[in-house]
Amino acid sequence: MSICEMSATALRAALRRRELSAREVLEAHLARIEERNPGINAIVTLTEERARREASEADRRLARGEPVGALHGLPMAHKDTHLTEGVRTTFGSPAMREHVPAEDELLVARLRAAGSICLGKTNAPEFGAGSHTFNPVFGVTRNPHDPSRSAGGSSGGAAAALASGMQPLADGSDMGGSLRNPASFCGVVGLRPSPGLVPSYPNPTPWSPLSTQGPMARTVADVALLLSVMAGADERAPLSAHQPASTSAGELDRDLRGLRIGWSADLGGSIPVESEVAEVVRAAAERFAELGCRVEEACPDFTGADETFRTLRAWQFELSLGRLLDESPELVKPSLAANIEEGRKLSGPDLGRAAVTQAELYHRARVFFGDHDVLLLPVSQLPPFDAELEYPREVAGVAGRDYLDWMASCSYVSVLGHPALSVPAGSTADGLPVGVQLVGRYREDFELLRVAHAFERAADGN
Amino acid sequence: MSICEMSATALRAALRRRELSAREVLEAHLARIEERNPGINAIVTLTEERARREASEADRRLARGEPVGALHGLPMAHKDTHLTEGVRTTFGSPAMREHVPAEDELLVARLRAAGSICLGKTNAPEFGAGSHTFNPVFGVTRNPHDPSRSAGGSSGGAAAALASGMQPLADGSDMGGSLRNPASFCGVVGLRPSPGLVPSYPNPTPWSPLSTQGPMARTVADVALLLSVMAGADERAPLSAHQPASTSAGELDRDLRGLRIGWSADLGGSIPVESEVAEVVRAAAERFAELGCRVEEACPDFTGADETFRTLRAWQFELSLGRLLDESPELVKPSLAANIEEGRKLSGPDLGRAAVTQAELYHRARVFFGDHDVLLLPVSQLPPFDAELEYPREVAGVAGRDYLDWMASCSYVSVLGHPALSVPAGSTADGLPVGVQLVGRYREDFELLRVAHAFERAADGN
Repeated sequence: MSICEMSATALRAALRRRELSAREVLEAHLARIEERNPGINAIVTLTEERARREASEADRRLARGEPVGALHGLPMAHKDTHLTEGVRTTFGSPAMREHVPAEDELLVARLRAAGSICLGKTNAPEFGAGSHTFNPVFGVTRNPHDPSRSAGGSSGGAAAALASGMQPLADGSDMGGSLRNPASFCGVVGLRPSPGLVPSYPNPTPWSPLSTQGPMARTVADVALLLSVMAGADERAPLSAHQPASTSAGELDRDLRGLRIGWSADLGGSIPVESEVAEVVRAAAERFAELGCRVEEACPDFTGADETFRTLRAWQFELSLGRLLDESPELVKPSLAANIEEGRKLSGPDLGRAAVTQAELYHRARVFFGDHDVLLLPVSQLPPFDAELEYPREVAGVAGRDYLDWMASCSYVSVLGHPALSVPAGSTADGLPVGVQLVGRYREDFELLRVAHAFERAADGN
Repeated sequence: MSICEMSATALRAALRRRELSAREVLEAHLARIEERNPGINAIVTLTEERARREASEADRRLARGEPVGALHGLPMAHKDTHLTEGVRTTFGSPAMREHVPAEDELLVARLRAAGSICLGKTNAPEFGAGSHTFNPVFGVTRNPHDPSRSAGGSSGGAAAALASGMQPLADGSDMGGSLRNPASFCGVVGLRPSPGLVPSYPNPTPWSPLSTQGPMARTVADVALLLSVMAGADERAPLSAHQPASTSAGELDRDLRGLRIGWSADLGGSIPVESEVAEVVRAAAERFAELGCRVEEACPDFTGADETFRTLRAWQFELSLGRLLDESPELVKPSLAANIEEGRKLSGPDLGRAAVTQAELYHRARVFFGDHDVLLLPVSQLPPFDAELEYPREVAGVAGRDYLDWMASCSYVSVLGHPALSVPAGSTADGLPVGVQLVGRYREDFELLRVAHAFERAADGN
């Protein structure tokens, strides 16, 4: 197996045993980037020389017998919405084209402190808005499985770089599906953690559970490894919480017999879903049954999720980007400008209702997990679509109102406030990847990963 | 020492050693209530027969050698804004005059599961609004040290019942000072915990850090005992967090030498404070210096705290009580109706600015605690005032705008998002109690209690 196909867990072990050097691992990935990135456009800033320096230093550290971190020698490009010291961070916006942060943000600092090697930055839509990755600074990111198709978004560069072997691990963030949808489109694993599990700083709304940062990788075990580095309280993130982290593959093993799975291909009839996706969800339910789970069609009541998500999202964009829209309206894409304008029209009582409904949805999910262990849903409502589109205008023959409607399968779940993961589960007739979404109990993210790990192994066995 | 003067910690030990029975402890407190409550009006619903049944059952349980909880046999009346199964819970509102909940809320359930004996309910202002305890259902609560004076609020019944020996422990809640101001006025100890340390359910805004529930008692050690029962994560409260609890008096001992104390008698010049209060704060700073602390005048920048607190408070009242105001305006006191109307006028961007400023204030405090261990401030800006007033119209000759302005010393601290405690520190020329406010690091509530414990012991030694 080539270095670029190895899992992060396997690379990590080989690096520690000195069967591979960090420099060798890096050069293999740089060669892969040279080969694949021009056609995919996943990594939009490459810090080649810096990565070489860091990898050589990592090798020297290990040679001197010094302690090394959990991600020792593993190359990672960071999402271009995550601040990186000395490395251009554009947020995909022409307004930030030349922006070079003075400091790493908290997530990046943790990854670097754990020994990861900074490869550069992965592409994202303008200010992370939307689940298809394109922007006026770097253009569109294409799906490694078919470059005519979207890689999803907003962590689309991250997912495409993983799927094409350009990096073994990736970071991302998820407000309405941005860690899950690109994972599904690209055939990798993305976890939207429980709010607060992965601390975020700086963050203008540090008590809001709507947006979270999190891990993405090619296997569930690699996501668990990465989550173990990302997770844990930090006083700069007041919502953040400590959680016991169990990370080794051994600890991921779990017998699923007796597990209670509720599933729905259309979130209880609340959204349209294309038949190829619905079929993958149904087949996943069957796979869980074969693994000994008690499987039934069931899901929480999502009433109110749509309005609540849209209200909270518009509010957050207004508070983050209202000033930019005032000062430089020509630098904001129209769909995002419309969201900011929606945020301006909101009243305090609108936000009061959204907060109360968000709490109700959290509790409906909590009560659901009194009777069920896992909720199985589609990730995206349709397979990877034409990369030239701004967004799909309809799903299963139902027209959407705007660029948010085709991703309701993820955004509705965001409002539940529970951890949710996308894991590969099948493919379309054209061979495009399709994931399923597993939602688990609040703050039991590692238990959710154990379930996904067993599901993934059963798929590999098929 | 009579039973009603004993600390909860001492009572607890005597109960476990069977030197006192739960029934004896209860009867002593019932007798004290009969004697003192008519003049003070702290306990507004008394569940005498139920308490006798529970105390007798507690005694039988111990006699049978069964395990008993941390609060075994300790009588407690719950704040009348806390839901109690089968016990009238009016929120001080004529709209809730006959309201009998079907279930205990989470906080009450924890206290009862720990073995406390339900004495009844303590008085609070209408829907907990305001720091002086009076309402149309039960009238005014008076200060045990001088019944012509206010007991403070909103947990005023709790503090007055403690100070008069009617109960050894109390629960309360604090949005803008409601656990601290009555503790200062009545000469007891009240802790506003770090948001999330004490889980709250039901709660219409479970991610908001503005309002928290917490403990009140006559000594710091008793507050620590009670906090150890109240604290700890619950999935019904998504902001809640686990925290190691150290509770025994021994573990509260701490040498304060070298501790860095920043203090201000007027929050850096941002509020008026009456001279008798400022004098107590100055004397407390001196006491810390005598204990070996490094003491300097310093406090975080409170710019924005006033508007942020008022915005978030008005927003919360609108979402909780907007419907009541529409349906039964005659049942809402004018000052509260005005707050709800302010909430109606808020825009989404107003709330965006408030959220961003709240985060800034949290971080200013966090940075302050990089250089300091404790922040010493006044609790209330003036000593206990005439109980017949709706609220004091001026402080130190400066007119206030409304019933919130005289409590800015507490409400500004609420917005910092850090734990804050009121501990007795002195008295006025008239012999009325005056507390000081100690603010500590986020989620280091027990460390704050250790500092307060040393301060309290030094005071007792004087």
